[in-house]
Amino acid sequence: MSRLRLDIAYDGTDFHGWAAQEGLRTVQGELQLWLARLLRLDSAALTVAGRTDAGVHARGQVAHLDLPDGMDARETAAALARKLRAVLPEDVVVRQVGVAPAGFDARFSAIWRLYTYRLCDRVPDPLNRRNVTPFDGDLDVEAINAAGQVLVGLHDFTAFCKAREGATAIRTLQQVEAWRYGDNVEITFQADAFCHSMVRSLTGALLLVATGKRDLAWLAGLLDADARAGEITVMPARGLTLEEVGYPPDELLAGRAQEARNTRTLTPEAK
Amino acid sequence: MSRLRLDIAYDGTDFHGWAAQEGLRTVQGELQLWLARLLRLDSAALTVAGRTDAGVHARGQVAHLDLPDGMDARETAAALARKLRAVLPEDVVVRQVGVAPAGFDARFSAIWRLYTYRLCDRVPDPLNRRNVTPFDGDLDVEAINAAGQVLVGLHDFTAFCKAREGATAIRTLQQVEAWRYGDNVEITFQADAFCHSMVRSLTGALLLVATGKRDLAWLAGLLDADARAGEITVMPARGLTLEEVGYPPDELLAGRAQEARNTRTLTPEAK
Repeated sequence: MSRLRLDIAYDGTDFHGWAAQEGLRTVQGELQLWLARLLRLDSAALTVAGRTDAGVHARGQVAHLDLPDGMDARETAAALARKLRAVLPEDVVVRQVGVAPAGFDARFSAIWRLYTYRLCDRVPDPLNRRNVTPFDGDLDVEAINAAGQVLVGLHDFTAFCKAREGATAIRTLQQVEAWRYGDNVEITFQADAFCHSMVRSLTGALLLVATGKRDLAWLAGLLDADARAGEITVMPARGLTLEEVGYPPDELLAGRAQEARNTRTLTPEAK
Repeated sequence: MSRLRLDIAYDGTDFHGWAAQEGLRTVQGELQLWLARLLRLDSAALTVAGRTDAGVHARGQVAHLDLPDGMDARETAAALARKLRAVLPEDVVVRQVGVAPAGFDARFSAIWRLYTYRLCDRVPDPLNRRNVTPFDGDLDVEAINAAGQVLVGLHDFTAFCKAREGATAIRTLQQVEAWRYGDNVEITFQADAFCHSMVRSLTGALLLVATGKRDLAWLAGLLDADARAGEITVMPARGLTLEEVGYPPDELLAGRAQEARNTRTLTPEAK
């Protein structure tokens, strides 16, 4: 069996998220439909690094596709990105297609995901409105960065996550960083993985602190909470973009795959 | 009588251009409707620097509005941008409103207009697709710049313009410059004024030369043409954005306004 790696970008505005759902327009559904048609398969099943919600965008999404025995991976990969670009709607682009290295799994091999949340607190640019959330008030980048430092590290992010049966919300938030770009403020979040709606909740909490409505002690306290904190605004999907997914060097993938299989035997949810 | 200056940005995708047309959604129509409502006027007539075509965008459009006698310009200007932002659809933004200096006319005072045409010749970004035109082939920025130099200067641009009764196409093209930004190439054009569809035709001609389909002598020859050159592709509106309009310092405006009035007495079309 051979596996392809697909690097994908999309404008999430008109999609009901990544995950295929019967009767709804989704990124996975659109891609699988065209992959099956172009490769003349009955079906094509993609495994993805980040299952983005409805309205969330991506510039650096990664997925993999297993090819049936007998199909030449190198030959298939070579022409596929161009062919997909010719048929896919303009709001989803397969940036490149390559043969996945041994042991590569788009979801389980990933060691970090990097999301950016974009806000405009000054004059909005109508040409960027599909991926920037307007914010009423002045944003203080230094205050956001100070608050972000409270969240960095290995924590239980239950307060920031939609509850899921049997799943933990323990994650390592590796980096939070805010920058001003003219009339916009961008906040990037890098973690080993994120749970459902976590980046949008983290952003909401940071803004409560940065605007003086809550203090750093409140934020730190949320890391001890054992339930979702209802007082945090889940920011609109529109401002959120999955920018990049990180993987270890090819030569470490095979060992990591074995390790992940062992872990999954122990816990049902390894994401 | 007092006059307001409005600085305007819009995503032209869903507008039938700037100019108001009965029964069609236009930028001017949308703005005049809300200006009249907010200022409690029977009607509000805007005069604009650049009458952009259907689908063309703007980040630095400028217009003026004359207020009826008795209305305080300073007070009106102070709150208007914020009020407009609250009611206008998200694809048009009034960036700022100020009291126009004496002698200011958004159209006749302008000494230059700067447009940018954006092309993507590599992997398209779905989040920028509304203002970038995909281009099939590799673009050579140096070749575009070399061709651009042929066009710079005071010329008769009839070959690049839609014919208009009694109007000349003599313009001063002050600057043409192409840059690569990652997967995109941007070409900026600065001139005292542009005639109808001129930037899109200039871009089409530059691309014919840069891709080796025509040579520099052909391009130079077009500057002597006395009719529109049918062989030039008028590039799609989507890639074009009016970025900025230049005006002389305030203290020179009044003298310039008198001069423009004298010129207009002599030629019916001074744009």
